[in-house]
Amino acid sequence: MTRDGGVSQLEAYLDASREQRLASYLSFLRIPSISTLPEHAADCRSAAEWVAGQLRSMGAEHVEVAETGGHPIAYGDWLHADGAPTVLVYGHYDVQPVDPIDLWARPPFEPVVEGSRVLGRGASDDKGQVDIHLRALEALLATRGRLPVNLKVVVEGEEENNSPHFDAWLVDNRARLAADLAVVSDSRFFDGNLPTITVGLRGILYAQIDVSGSAMDLHSGSYGGTVDNPANVLAGIIAALKGLDGVVRIPGFYDDVVPLSDAERAALADLPFDEQAYREALGVPSLGGEPGYTTLERRGARPTLDVSGMWAGFQGAGAKTIIPSDAHAKVGCRLVPNQDPRRVFDQLRAYVEALAPRTVRVDVTLLGAGLPTRTPLDHPATQAAARAIERTFGVRPVYAREGVSIPVCASLETVLGVPVLLLGFGPPDDQSHAPNEWMSLSNYELGIRTVARLWDELAATSGTGTRPWAPGHAPQAAT
Amino acid sequence: MTRDGGVSQLEAYLDASREQRLASYLSFLRIPSISTLPEHAADCRSAAEWVAGQLRSMGAEHVEVAETGGHPIAYGDWLHADGAPTVLVYGHYDVQPVDPIDLWARPPFEPVVEGSRVLGRGASDDKGQVDIHLRALEALLATRGRLPVNLKVVVEGEEENNSPHFDAWLVDNRARLAADLAVVSDSRFFDGNLPTITVGLRGILYAQIDVSGSAMDLHSGSYGGTVDNPANVLAGIIAALKGLDGVVRIPGFYDDVVPLSDAERAALADLPFDEQAYREALGVPSLGGEPGYTTLERRGARPTLDVSGMWAGFQGAGAKTIIPSDAHAKVGCRLVPNQDPRRVFDQLRAYVEALAPRTVRVDVTLLGAGLPTRTPLDHPATQAAARAIERTFGVRPVYAREGVSIPVCASLETVLGVPVLLLGFGPPDDQSHAPNEWMSLSNYELGIRTVARLWDELAATSGTGTRPWAPGHAPQAAT
Repeated sequence: MTRDGGVSQLEAYLDASREQRLASYLSFLRIPSISTLPEHAADCRSAAEWVAGQLRSMGAEHVEVAETGGHPIAYGDWLHADGAPTVLVYGHYDVQPVDPIDLWARPPFEPVVEGSRVLGRGASDDKGQVDIHLRALEALLATRGRLPVNLKVVVEGEEENNSPHFDAWLVDNRARLAADLAVVSDSRFFDGNLPTITVGLRGILYAQIDVSGSAMDLHSGSYGGTVDNPANVLAGIIAALKGLDGVVRIPGFYDDVVPLSDAERAALADLPFDEQAYREALGVPSLGGEPGYTTLERRGARPTLDVSGMWAGFQGAGAKTIIPSDAHAKVGCRLVPNQDPRRVFDQLRAYVEALAPRTVRVDVTLLGAGLPTRTPLDHPATQAAARAIERTFGVRPVYAREGVSIPVCASLETVLGVPVLLLGFGPPDDQSHAPNEWMSLSNYELGIRTVARLWDELAATSGTGTRPWAPGHAPQAAT
Repeated sequence: MTRDGGVSQLEAYLDASREQRLASYLSFLRIPSISTLPEHAADCRSAAEWVAGQLRSMGAEHVEVAETGGHPIAYGDWLHADGAPTVLVYGHYDVQPVDPIDLWARPPFEPVVEGSRVLGRGASDDKGQVDIHLRALEALLATRGRLPVNLKVVVEGEEENNSPHFDAWLVDNRARLAADLAVVSDSRFFDGNLPTITVGLRGILYAQIDVSGSAMDLHSGSYGGTVDNPANVLAGIIAALKGLDGVVRIPGFYDDVVPLSDAERAALADLPFDEQAYREALGVPSLGGEPGYTTLERRGARPTLDVSGMWAGFQGAGAKTIIPSDAHAKVGCRLVPNQDPRRVFDQLRAYVEALAPRTVRVDVTLLGAGLPTRTPLDHPATQAAARAIERTFGVRPVYAREGVSIPVCASLETVLGVPVLLLGFGPPDDQSHAPNEWMSLSNYELGIRTVARLWDELAATSGTGTRPWAPGHAPQAAT
């Protein structure tokens, strides 16, 4: 069977199975596998079993729902491409919480297709992109009876909660997970829906600040003026962490940041980017950010500090006149090479503790940390992906440094020692952590074809005798 | 019937009816009449009807549940004490919200008696104190067939929501509400449970600050650094309103504050007050407040600014990595003579608008305002109350300036032109706006007897021919 013939057969198979595939995709989206909420633990397990069931029925082997101590990992492989490279595909079946629920146009776990969009929580992040890999695997095995590469599929269930059990599982399974390359499809196309290979990701630090004062809420009239108010104190702390100018004020925060080179600034400036359209899509009166940097530099190459949640006291309608006994905030930092999230956490905690008046108790807790990553542009796998994209989408990909964090990329690099290729198919405005998440049906369908082509490309490159995944091409360490 | 004979009969009646009275009091507390929450509107009406039913069965006349456009007002009177003064009694049947509900040792609307305490929302503020007046009325009419004074009982249902309809109702009913004196029992004893006549109350200003940015929550990785975060901006605004030193920074905020005189400072310093015990009861590591003032001065005689509630974004367990689309805070100021809440609101709004960056939208909304009040110590009604307290409790009352606000006091003064006597029976640590509110059974029982004696005292004073409620004795204006 020739490669071109295989591709034609593949196309025919994919065309014929479109309706069935879509129905299956929607059934995946119906599982409310929110990993951060304990009440959805059973749903997370169902989603893992759904993935394992798909892998099994498609012909993958060694399929299992692997225990981790948290939500399980779905695993399956196909290892009969002797002499061809081995690729580990990573994705996650867990999804973000859905609040504020009242801003969803439709229930988040009742997915629908509207025109060219699939609407529902997880449609893009990351169930839709996991399904792209499953359907490529299905189509190749169905039409050729074999894959061009050896494939190991790992779909975890705690990515949206900072993957607390993933690293340990990687370490425990290091031998069986050995691969030449890892492919992670959990990123987005560039603005304008341009096919994109992501060559840099920010790291993350996520912490909670808890301020407590009196043992109970106090009447603000009877006690106001005599005790410090935890909500006012928390606001003061948050205000001290980052100025209204967007500059983070934690001492030492910028110490390890590698300044952007002139070449990197030029590359970012060359990307097609309509700042006006970007602003309008977000609905903000004006963009903000750190002085001295462009929007794309702020997004991909500069560290940030954002409050993701904050709460204290009364939140109902009207007036309740209290001094709340406690106040809380979730604070996340996006980090860039060469920042270490644990070092930044220590800086954050020390600064908050120094700021806190002795009239209250303040605790700072680390909830998650992930290293920033960079993928070399000239890696042969990067170039193979570029060819697969160009042949499928008809345009060359752009190479972007993105603001998001996928801490598991750093884990795959450091634990398994493999280069990581970030090949994501989400539309740029997919609202993946917000209400009304969606996936482009076109990106989904062409994504399946791109992945299948990529496996062919990698096998062909391998066939030349030059193994592109040789140690010399391992990506530079992230930190 | 002699006055002493009347008192003995009264005592006998009150002793005999204790169990029945307590059961009735608990039935009042079972009505979840939370005025700020729209879903409790029917409960508020039930509470008004409960009060009206009690008044009717006790022999009050012209009893009605008066419509106001909001929660209704229960009214009843007894006007057959020819030549005796007319007293308007004010109270409220509505109660504070109950969150955080999980900090209540028992359900807030399932009241119980434990030892010397009645536990339940409203036990002290203000149902228990309304019931004190109802039971004094009942006992006097049951034992004497008449009251020593003319009485008009007004029990409203929106006090905990800043009484938005009360002033208009007062204006509309000015003629029928004409009185020589208003008695408001919605305050507390001094620390140590010392019987107290409150001679000064702080005013209040309650506002909401809403900050909005993007049209939807944004992924903090994809967008972090490029847009201003409404939660960070709100924290910056709140931090700018009041320093960690407790000094309010709104320009002009202190302009109209009447400085404490040396005599007032001396009077406050003379009050028995155990600062260490106060701190320990609140469970705070250390007291706070404005430099240069004592705790009692901070509480009663200095204005404040406190966040009563604050919310934005994700509040669940774990991590959700978003930039919230909006952030909100409830901000309350306690004001002192001669501050005008509407002027302070204008100062607050102007300052917040000046602080807000143009990257977000900021709204400041007035939710409530009430004038501060002062009652002259040498008013004959104040002295009559002091005698009634001393004869019932066996100790002289203390005279306190309290931090709480009862905006209706200013309304009664300004609309009806009557002096207001603040005769409250709540224990000082009744947790009236917090979980586990309670009332002292002893204060409740002796409160009933004090009120009955006060009516006798006022009638006796009136009999001397010197009307203590003559215009010349009207209290000084609050502002």
